Amino acid sequence: MRVLGIDPGLRHLGWGVIDAAGSRLSHVANGTCHSAGDDLASRLLSLHGQLSAILREYAPDTAAVEETFVNTNASATLKLGQARGIALLVPAQAGLQVGEYAPNTVKKTVVGVGHAGKEQVAHMVRVQLPGVEITGPDAADALAIAICHAHHARSPMRVVPATQANRRRTRA
Amino acid sequence: MRVLGIDPGLRHLGWGVIDAAGSRLSHVANGTCHSAGDDLASRLLSLHGQLSAILREYAPDTAAVEETFVNTNASATLKLGQARGIALLVPAQAGLQVGEYAPNTVKKTVVGVGHAGKEQVAHMVRVQLPGVEITGPDAADALAIAICHAHHARSPMRVVPATQANRRRTRA
Repeated sequence: MRVLGIDPGLRHLGWGVIDAAGSRLSHVANGTCHSAGDDLASRLLSLHGQLSAILREYAPDTAAVEETFVNTNASATLKLGQARGIALLVPAQAGLQVGEYAPNTVKKTVVGVGHAGKEQVAHMVRVQLPGVEITGPDAADALAIAICHAHHARSPMRVVPATQANRRRTRA
Repeated sequence: MRVLGIDPGLRHLGWGVIDAAGSRLSHVANGTCHSAGDDLASRLLSLHGQLSAILREYAPDTAAVEETFVNTNASATLKLGQARGIALLVPAQAGLQVGEYAPNTVKKTVVGVGHAGKEQVAHMVRVQLPGVEITGPDAADALAIAICHAHHARSPMRVVPATQANRRRTRA
């Protein structure tokens, strides 16, 4: 099963692709999409194009996006939400079911504790994906999300009609 | 010039299309997209599909989306942001420049005061678009956004390279 993890952000959107065979994980690719454009719509269009190209290139079986918001700043939360909308839309357009995980769930799965720091998460990503070269902090988080999703979703899931979806949730 | 206004929302997304010839406005169509699907990604995919169909059917020259957030609730703001990401993306995918207006700017343009109530906005939309049948409250807001954009953007604008965009902004 090939898993795409996405750490959404309007300026920098991290992504990571891993292969999971049972409990054995291996690294495929990781990177960061940087949004280009002067206005918001152009930035979102840019992210959509880059992320769609990643879906086409790596053809994941399933995807997951971090579920997070900025508590203190409504404007920042709205910006993140807009990028997150694209991050959820693109895998859904490719017919994939998209899992969502809270940051604490990702950390607990990857590091073992819910309050791990960024460095600790990156370290455990390296331990679990031998030979990986992490290209940046957002890509590290995206790989952690992919690892978390691989642990929670053992079989690839496709989008199913709403009536069936209740019985086939990937969400933790 | 044909203008599409969008009032974004995750469950109900209002839209309205008007024609503007100089200062003369006329109604074309309005409605509300209701998102279907059990999970968030499916809902966004559903909104994307419906809004793309509206773009294809009415072929607007320019579009505008309301710029708003829920101050008191980060979770609600994130949800709105996700829907707003789709609302901005779809016209951009069709090559349109997308304007953004704060609710107060919309009200000030349509009603004359920034703190008008919903009923007052709907009334002034009816006055300015003779014969319009407003299909719902979100559609009324979307028509108000389209009217506001028609007043601010006198000529149709297409997406231009970022270096030129500084000189050709539709935003108020």
